[in-house]
Amino acid sequence: MIYWRRGIAVIYATAEDSARKLWNIIKKEYPSVLFKYDDNLLGKIWNCYDALVFVMALGGVVRTVCKYAKSKDVDPSVIAVDDSLKFVIPLLGSHWGSNQLASEISRILNATPVITTASEINQVTSVEELANLLICKVINVNAIVRVTSALIRGEKVCVEGVNSLPVVKGNYVLGKDAECKYFVKVIKDGNENMGDDNTVYLRPLKLYVGIGAKKEASVEEIKEAIYFALGQLKVGLDRVLKIASVREVVEEVSKSLNIPFQKIDWETINSFNDECLTPPSEKLEELGIKGVAEISAFIAGGPSAKLILRKISYKSKITVAIAGV
Amino acid sequence: MIYWRRGIAVIYATAEDSARKLWNIIKKEYPSVLFKYDDNLLGKIWNCYDALVFVMALGGVVRTVCKYAKSKDVDPSVIAVDDSLKFVIPLLGSHWGSNQLASEISRILNATPVITTASEINQVTSVEELANLLICKVINVNAIVRVTSALIRGEKVCVEGVNSLPVVKGNYVLGKDAECKYFVKVIKDGNENMGDDNTVYLRPLKLYVGIGAKKEASVEEIKEAIYFALGQLKVGLDRVLKIASVREVVEEVSKSLNIPFQKIDWETINSFNDECLTPPSEKLEELGIKGVAEISAFIAGGPSAKLILRKISYKSKITVAIAGV
Repeated sequence: MIYWRRGIAVIYATAEDSARKLWNIIKKEYPSVLFKYDDNLLGKIWNCYDALVFVMALGGVVRTVCKYAKSKDVDPSVIAVDDSLKFVIPLLGSHWGSNQLASEISRILNATPVITTASEINQVTSVEELANLLICKVINVNAIVRVTSALIRGEKVCVEGVNSLPVVKGNYVLGKDAECKYFVKVIKDGNENMGDDNTVYLRPLKLYVGIGAKKEASVEEIKEAIYFALGQLKVGLDRVLKIASVREVVEEVSKSLNIPFQKIDWETINSFNDECLTPPSEKLEELGIKGVAEISAFIAGGPSAKLILRKISYKSKITVAIAGV
Repeated sequence: MIYWRRGIAVIYATAEDSARKLWNIIKKEYPSVLFKYDDNLLGKIWNCYDALVFVMALGGVVRTVCKYAKSKDVDPSVIAVDDSLKFVIPLLGSHWGSNQLASEISRILNATPVITTASEINQVTSVEELANLLICKVINVNAIVRVTSALIRGEKVCVEGVNSLPVVKGNYVLGKDAECKYFVKVIKDGNENMGDDNTVYLRPLKLYVGIGAKKEASVEEIKEAIYFALGQLKVGLDRVLKIASVREVVEEVSKSLNIPFQKIDWETINSFNDECLTPPSEKLEELGIKGVAEISAFIAGGPSAKLILRKISYKSKITVAIAGV
């Protein structure tokens, strides 16, 4: 089960009502943003979201995809839905969850999922995908091909340095195994000798949590929201280096979780920019303020931070976003 | 009703049986060739066929389309069919007949046509498309935009110089009409003053018919075959400048139709090449001979001839192809 942590962009050309209906379904489960089609925005959206769902005729989606598609490894999942919400058609990323997302959406819309890939029994989760699921960075990129090839041949690959495996396809084994000739090792620092060509080394990304909270949000609720967000990513509190917010109350939360707190001021929020930020809602836009959760996370993470979890809302009182380095 | 006169290429990656089943359906109605997917061939196929039907997963079709697509005006229609023949999905050219073709195929396969374009009520047949249907060449390309824009606004466009109109969308009117401010004029020679910006001038392509015939084909049957082929294009015998063949018997046909005959010799056939030629069947390939109908038509038409009608078979005895200049 994939969680689209960087969010699902729903993009429509003219059928706003259909798109809004679809968006309301998707955003119950995943971070999601609704966009009107705009050539100037698409490059950003392409790079910043895990999945793009276009509500428009397939021909237009294809010509758009052609403009932005680079390669299987970096392109987002792409799904096309016709204006009348009859068909849900995965175009790109079927190996990486778009078939499943299309099926979920179709079930709720009572639409037809147009699945055109053969059964995925023989497919394996690539090492990059595993790294992504573990929210890790690959240190020795050159070893990826050997290990992924071993998986495709059906050989065992031992995954060390984690307590559990995410849902993966392929002969991944948790921990040590005498038969293993290929490995994925999650290591805390880069000191280990990494000369082994049969091992892909992963470094866990350091996570920075940004919080937005209404006045009525309690310390306990904010704590719950943080656990909820980390739960979506299937990582523990031990991965979090800082919690950041404009709200004083979050400092209490940090203390009780024993994690450093960084107070962000409004001026810094308002002068910050990153192309992957969720655009402010109309309400915020009217008030002239930006969303705070994502920006707080980015600032805490420093200039090289990337969006790891697009902001999610908890009990309509709290927003949580996570950046990573 | 569109006739895919330059043919429909059916292209499969691995599901040969499904592709063959589909091809057998399509070739009953239209000139059609079956190909195994080959990157080296695709550029040619893209330029030489009116429609490409891919039997493979949609993601692969999209990445292929991205490699070759240029613009709406020049790209062929593209349809994707999944390996299990459950879905028939028009990707490109829905304005130009791929929706209709997908529906026809789906009906016979008992598959689902995945039509994602809104009802086409508001669409018009562009002037280029009309020229294509009339098998004409646009002389003054610069006037196309004005006349097509008039059609889109719903204004009348008078079509002069033809006896009947093909099936078109938009406010085309046959012949003269006092209200007409925009015109499409089919003219026999280029002597007319063509300074009028509100008129698109078309020149009928000169047609050259190539014939292949088994020994048992009679003069009468060959004549029928020629009429049948011209009927597919909805043009009359008056458009044909030459009939060409390696077979002597065709000279008799030409005489009785009062059209010049060109005898082609085998040596010329075997040394001729054009990237749009239909690849020889396995049987011909084994015998070491090329198909004759298309090559005869090309040779009769001279070096600037283009394929107008991919070879069709008549009563399994005669093949007819048409080139145009």
